[in-house]
Amino acid sequence: MESAGAVPAAVLLDLDAVRCDVEAVLTDFFRAKERAAREAGLSGAPVRVLADFVGAGGKRLRPLLCAAGWCAAAGGEAVPPEAVLKVAAALEMFHAFALVHDDVMDGSPARRGRPSVHRTLAGLHPGPGPLAAEFGRAAAVLIGDMAFAFSDELVHTAGLSPQELARVLPLLGAMRIETMHGQWLDLLTTGRPSGDVETARTVIAHKTAKYTVERPLHIGAALAGPASAVQAACSAYALPLGEAFQLRDDLLGVFGTARATGKDPLDDLREGKNTVLLATARQRADPAQRSVLRALVGKRDLTEPEAARIRTVIEATGARADVERMIARLRRDALRALAEASFPAAAAGALHDLAHAVVARTG
Amino acid sequence: MESAGAVPAAVLLDLDAVRCDVEAVLTDFFRAKERAAREAGLSGAPVRVLADFVGAGGKRLRPLLCAAGWCAAAGGEAVPPEAVLKVAAALEMFHAFALVHDDVMDGSPARRGRPSVHRTLAGLHPGPGPLAAEFGRAAAVLIGDMAFAFSDELVHTAGLSPQELARVLPLLGAMRIETMHGQWLDLLTTGRPSGDVETARTVIAHKTAKYTVERPLHIGAALAGPASAVQAACSAYALPLGEAFQLRDDLLGVFGTARATGKDPLDDLREGKNTVLLATARQRADPAQRSVLRALVGKRDLTEPEAARIRTVIEATGARADVERMIARLRRDALRALAEASFPAAAAGALHDLAHAVVARTG
Repeated sequence: MESAGAVPAAVLLDLDAVRCDVEAVLTDFFRAKERAAREAGLSGAPVRVLADFVGAGGKRLRPLLCAAGWCAAAGGEAVPPEAVLKVAAALEMFHAFALVHDDVMDGSPARRGRPSVHRTLAGLHPGPGPLAAEFGRAAAVLIGDMAFAFSDELVHTAGLSPQELARVLPLLGAMRIETMHGQWLDLLTTGRPSGDVETARTVIAHKTAKYTVERPLHIGAALAGPASAVQAACSAYALPLGEAFQLRDDLLGVFGTARATGKDPLDDLREGKNTVLLATARQRADPAQRSVLRALVGKRDLTEPEAARIRTVIEATGARADVERMIARLRRDALRALAEASFPAAAAGALHDLAHAVVARTG
Repeated sequence: MESAGAVPAAVLLDLDAVRCDVEAVLTDFFRAKERAAREAGLSGAPVRVLADFVGAGGKRLRPLLCAAGWCAAAGGEAVPPEAVLKVAAALEMFHAFALVHDDVMDGSPARRGRPSVHRTLAGLHPGPGPLAAEFGRAAAVLIGDMAFAFSDELVHTAGLSPQELARVLPLLGAMRIETMHGQWLDLLTTGRPSGDVETARTVIAHKTAKYTVERPLHIGAALAGPASAVQAACSAYALPLGEAFQLRDDLLGVFGTARATGKDPLDDLREGKNTVLLATARQRADPAQRSVLRALVGKRDLTEPEAARIRTVIEATGARADVERMIARLRRDALRALAEASFPAAAAGALHDLAHAVVARTG
């Protein structure tokens, strides 16, 4: 945090404080929603299931970036006002929507070290296994929908001025649609093995880089004032960082432990998502290696020894090292963009820390 | 339309014109979205799938009621401005979201006389049957999500004043959450046979009466001006009418033809939804009749002869006639409320027509 060294700590954006404040916004919101449901004679259960999922953790990256984006455009202010925290919380709520639906779509069994929402819900059903699983998936679609609606409500009740609302809504709309297009591409390519690194990168650009990093920064910046050079500087930092984030995620999906990632360590390989990592491995594989990948990636009942064979191929082809190099290069690009941006020190320090947190993470 | 007889046609709300205008808003919106996707280097396919579904028909009841609600509060004006038509279109888009997700949740094979969206999407996948079906369900969750996001965007870009937006957003939010709570209750009770007419009516109140009739009217009225006596008068008309609508739907789900309803005529019985119709039949059934209902309602592979046996029981217990009587009574209540409301003639005529259309429909 070179640039931050010279200024007193009080004027820096305090990411830990933002995290706490966002948790409080979410907790209060869920409490009010559960109460409202009960007062209307309805079950509080669906709200509680969602609240438990959101409360179970996560890095809160999008809220933190939203606060950092606000700070970058706020000309030296370092304590985000309530409205910024509420919009930041709305981004986390939208993310809960995306995760719950993603897990239903992918049939993922675990998330954040616990059963995924559709499996939790299946456990609430008294019926026999298949009926309970069906109920779990159906109810998880609904819980995701509820998170989407709640995310909207957090924005609408954040106390934004009409001008602020008018600046934020188009960005939120764009973020949603970009994410969905990325997810569409992801679904279309999953289970169809390919060495096409470019398509894998397009999915990343839409599904992760814009959604996870760029849009939260833009939305935060828009809360501080009308579009400015700050937006472009945010993008220059965000897009390489977001790509690095996803590449790290892909590596963790293959080489990470359940303990570190909160997911089943075989999940990504069983799904057969066309990651940059796998596309690179396919491109570089010799015929014997290629046949291992073809036979095992996307195999629904993949065993740990089979997964180990895939991992060996990914390492032997040099794909793992290659992706690590890409991550390092992208991180450098993001940090260079940050150095060139003329963000206030309050924001620069936080963005520097976030770049490290995003890329160096182990889960 | 007694009250409308004395005024010239030009000052009546023209429901056919509203329907056409709303279609045009939707068509233009989808065209712009598909173009935007292509310009961003993305596939236009998901937008097209949704556009085809929305374009395939439906009664457009919610947009019509929204326009009628506006008219009821607009003090004699009869031509809804562009912003009202856009919000009306947003309600149809939200309804598309609800239907697409409902069909995934229920595993319904058909809707609007065509394969449901998840089945259409499965047909786009080259994989073997189970993989294609899985893709279809996953992609349909996504298409529904997109409709939700689009619905929001239609509201945000409708050109509402900040005051209008502030009046409409809480009503939209309430509508969404009520619908989702109703759907939750519906999922929980489906497949668990019950003679509990009250729970079945609670589901209706939230999932249909408020969602389909009351909220669209309220939202329309809020576009004309701040909350007024009009809102309460709308509710007095809407809630019985909405309940009648759902009871008619339940009857059609058992006694209607595929041609009339656009759905598989065995679908509702296979699902085993706890409708007022079935709950009444269960309450009145003798032991032999009860065992027919217990064995066959909710049977996944129900055949047409088995469905005929259920229908016979529903008729023999008097449940069908009973529900017809309830519909007639509720419709009378709605019309009485309409007569007592001091709506402008322009709106009263349309609401009178809509009450007939809603309850007398055959599909």
